[in-house]
Amino acid sequence: MEYVSAALWQETMESCKQNAGKEQVVRVNGTVHAIRNMGEVCFVVLRGREGLLQCVCSKQTAKELKEEMAVTVWGTVSQEERAPGGVELHLTQVQILSRPAEPLPLAVSKKKLNTSLEAKLNLRSVSLRNMTERAKFKIQEGLVRGFRDYLYAQGFTEIHTPKIGAKGAEGGANIFKLDYFHQKAVLEQSPQLYKQMMVGVFERVFETGPVFRAEKHNTKRHLNEYTSLDLEMGFIESFEDLMAMETGFLQYAMELLQGSYGGELALLGVELPKTEEIPLVRFDRAKEMVAEKYGRPIRNPYDLEPEEEQLIGRLFWEDYGADFVFITHYPSKKRPFYAMDDPSDPRFTLSFDLLFRGLEVTTGGQRIHDYEQLVGKIAERNMSTEGLEYYLDAFRYGMPPHGGLGIGLERLTMQLLGEENVRETTLFPRDLNRLEP
Amino acid sequence: MEYVSAALWQETMESCKQNAGKEQVVRVNGTVHAIRNMGEVCFVVLRGREGLLQCVCSKQTAKELKEEMAVTVWGTVSQEERAPGGVELHLTQVQILSRPAEPLPLAVSKKKLNTSLEAKLNLRSVSLRNMTERAKFKIQEGLVRGFRDYLYAQGFTEIHTPKIGAKGAEGGANIFKLDYFHQKAVLEQSPQLYKQMMVGVFERVFETGPVFRAEKHNTKRHLNEYTSLDLEMGFIESFEDLMAMETGFLQYAMELLQGSYGGELALLGVELPKTEEIPLVRFDRAKEMVAEKYGRPIRNPYDLEPEEEQLIGRLFWEDYGADFVFITHYPSKKRPFYAMDDPSDPRFTLSFDLLFRGLEVTTGGQRIHDYEQLVGKIAERNMSTEGLEYYLDAFRYGMPPHGGLGIGLERLTMQLLGEENVRETTLFPRDLNRLEP
Repeated sequence: MEYVSAALWQETMESCKQNAGKEQVVRVNGTVHAIRNMGEVCFVVLRGREGLLQCVCSKQTAKELKEEMAVTVWGTVSQEERAPGGVELHLTQVQILSRPAEPLPLAVSKKKLNTSLEAKLNLRSVSLRNMTERAKFKIQEGLVRGFRDYLYAQGFTEIHTPKIGAKGAEGGANIFKLDYFHQKAVLEQSPQLYKQMMVGVFERVFETGPVFRAEKHNTKRHLNEYTSLDLEMGFIESFEDLMAMETGFLQYAMELLQGSYGGELALLGVELPKTEEIPLVRFDRAKEMVAEKYGRPIRNPYDLEPEEEQLIGRLFWEDYGADFVFITHYPSKKRPFYAMDDPSDPRFTLSFDLLFRGLEVTTGGQRIHDYEQLVGKIAERNMSTEGLEYYLDAFRYGMPPHGGLGIGLERLTMQLLGEENVRETTLFPRDLNRLEP
Repeated sequence: MEYVSAALWQETMESCKQNAGKEQVVRVNGTVHAIRNMGEVCFVVLRGREGLLQCVCSKQTAKELKEEMAVTVWGTVSQEERAPGGVELHLTQVQILSRPAEPLPLAVSKKKLNTSLEAKLNLRSVSLRNMTERAKFKIQEGLVRGFRDYLYAQGFTEIHTPKIGAKGAEGGANIFKLDYFHQKAVLEQSPQLYKQMMVGVFERVFETGPVFRAEKHNTKRHLNEYTSLDLEMGFIESFEDLMAMETGFLQYAMELLQGSYGGELALLGVELPKTEEIPLVRFDRAKEMVAEKYGRPIRNPYDLEPEEEQLIGRLFWEDYGADFVFITHYPSKKRPFYAMDDPSDPRFTLSFDLLFRGLEVTTGGQRIHDYEQLVGKIAERNMSTEGLEYYLDAFRYGMPPHGGLGIGLERLTMQLLGEENVRETTLFPRDLNRLEP
């Protein structure tokens, strides 16, 4: 007789399959996910951190159980092709560890939750007990993990920059303000200025953390707080180095998902995007291509409208079979003061966005590294250097050529999973109307 | 002839040592860290993300260079025991990529920066260019990395919870308030309530992110924003499971530091603490032990004074050779509403702090998982359930026995490195007087 804990769930199942025939008693912790009365026998499906486990028990035992009870069960394992994981546990003993106070308000054990987004978000701690809903956030974990592991291997240092600051990175009105011991303070919109300052120290840095945008948009793709995957790297030879680094990350992350999150991908029916080669197209050329192909007049030459982004995505999918496309050389007017202008045509910048299936998931580019040039650019824009003194110090005392990018984690997950609303891939979204849970 | 990039710095140095005698030309990117004029020849030390590299060049070449210039250099490699890394580059070509506007205000190339903490913090982007200062944050990276990697292997899921909320996790006055589109909002003091809610979903979760405390203390060990390493796990059999998990993390992290951050440990002269076995002592017993051994009267039976923490650390070091000690069973009065009381004596809780060399670096414990018990405790404390509705939902619909802990990253780093002030191990500290840089 052998006891194993839930920590070894997957291994146990594997070992049970290999040792079919030999009697093994296993002990497993889990939550009662579903109870199915089949007449003489009953099925009790347990939910554990690694997946579902089908248990067979008597009617008598099943009667004592309720959905969402936490239990420890003991039983013998047998192979059963129709059960999740290919094995089944014949219960010999059950211990109830905790009991819910009320029955579930949602049918979480169905494959797909049949309820509105609002209801799912209001009952977040319950709706995520659904395996499909839960799988989305395992995939999200894989993306963050892939980002960090890839960058560690590329010589990046992880940093933790403050979220409370004296001034927002890029100025503007979309900043949350707070009272900091009777001083004015803001929540950082981005780790931009800090990560640049740290390039002079560590050469390559990254951060995965929250950013805050007080934007009054209430759209399907905006959040007022989101997780940003940021990197910044020195000694780039051109801004194409940044796109190469992002491509490398995406390739690595897709391999990681394929290798370690295969169950979740299958459950969600996700087809991984192509990342072998990501096409580049200039901003102005992309606008023309869309205008030509879809007969859509160019209205705003300085920015991409959401519909244009969608059409660029569609065009590159239809004509090149590409899931991703880098849009390069955004107009200087629309980029922040620290963006490096293209020396061959300073109306444009050495910058890019990455579109994924027609939605922007990354903004990046080369930055100005020369102190005089940076101060000149600030003056040219009639901006004040007030609040930028510490940032400028890094440049005053020397900075290598550098650039970086930021990826919106929830958006990247949303596009990967083919969701229509970014709130579907946000654990606890914050928007104009939602501060809870 | 062979060109290599700085990405391969360490590998290059290794390969050069092995191929000594064979002429190799390498290309390296770096920042001019120091220039030493030795008469006919000059030494130029480059700083790269992997360390320092000594270059030998003519007086003529050295004259063109200034500290903190970013350069690409070419040269042949030879073995030189006295140089950092055991090799030396004889420069054949130098390309200047960027120039500082002004000479450095601090002598960053000295082994130890000879300046005040205030000056170091004001000039953060410069002071961290010192190799010793920089090494502190590489060690910090290793701790976070160790935390995540260990927990992934233990079946934990990484989560990202919101930092803007409607109500603080534990109530109290020490909460930063902000205006959120004309609603009242706060910055979360801890991911406590969110991570508990997610135990019902993922069973084991962790988060590494910022937390905000509007405490008016200005001490050497307090920050108003810090990075918290949080975990929460279901199906614990006792709160000792939590201490076992933390011990496992510490053991793993020390091995990781030893294996991958050896250069930084040596530079900082760090002796890694013992983590094989961490002693436990009850809160009340620890107070008595200190009172007995050091003749210090017990003034506050409900809390540990900072001096008592130091003395407990000293006692366990002197009598048991222990760097760490778990203090268990804190009085219920001093623990939050969700703490599980000890059934055998409800004046105390199934909770603990971890002291590291006399300073608290972790607070943790078992939580109440039964809905009725939780609601009862809230009522008993004359607290309102207002703002806790979503949290209580998780319990209403069933939660397994669980518990968790939070580790202050900057404090853990501080104690590991033997620093006197937590600001020494905080990239950009936030305190009563400091909002910048």
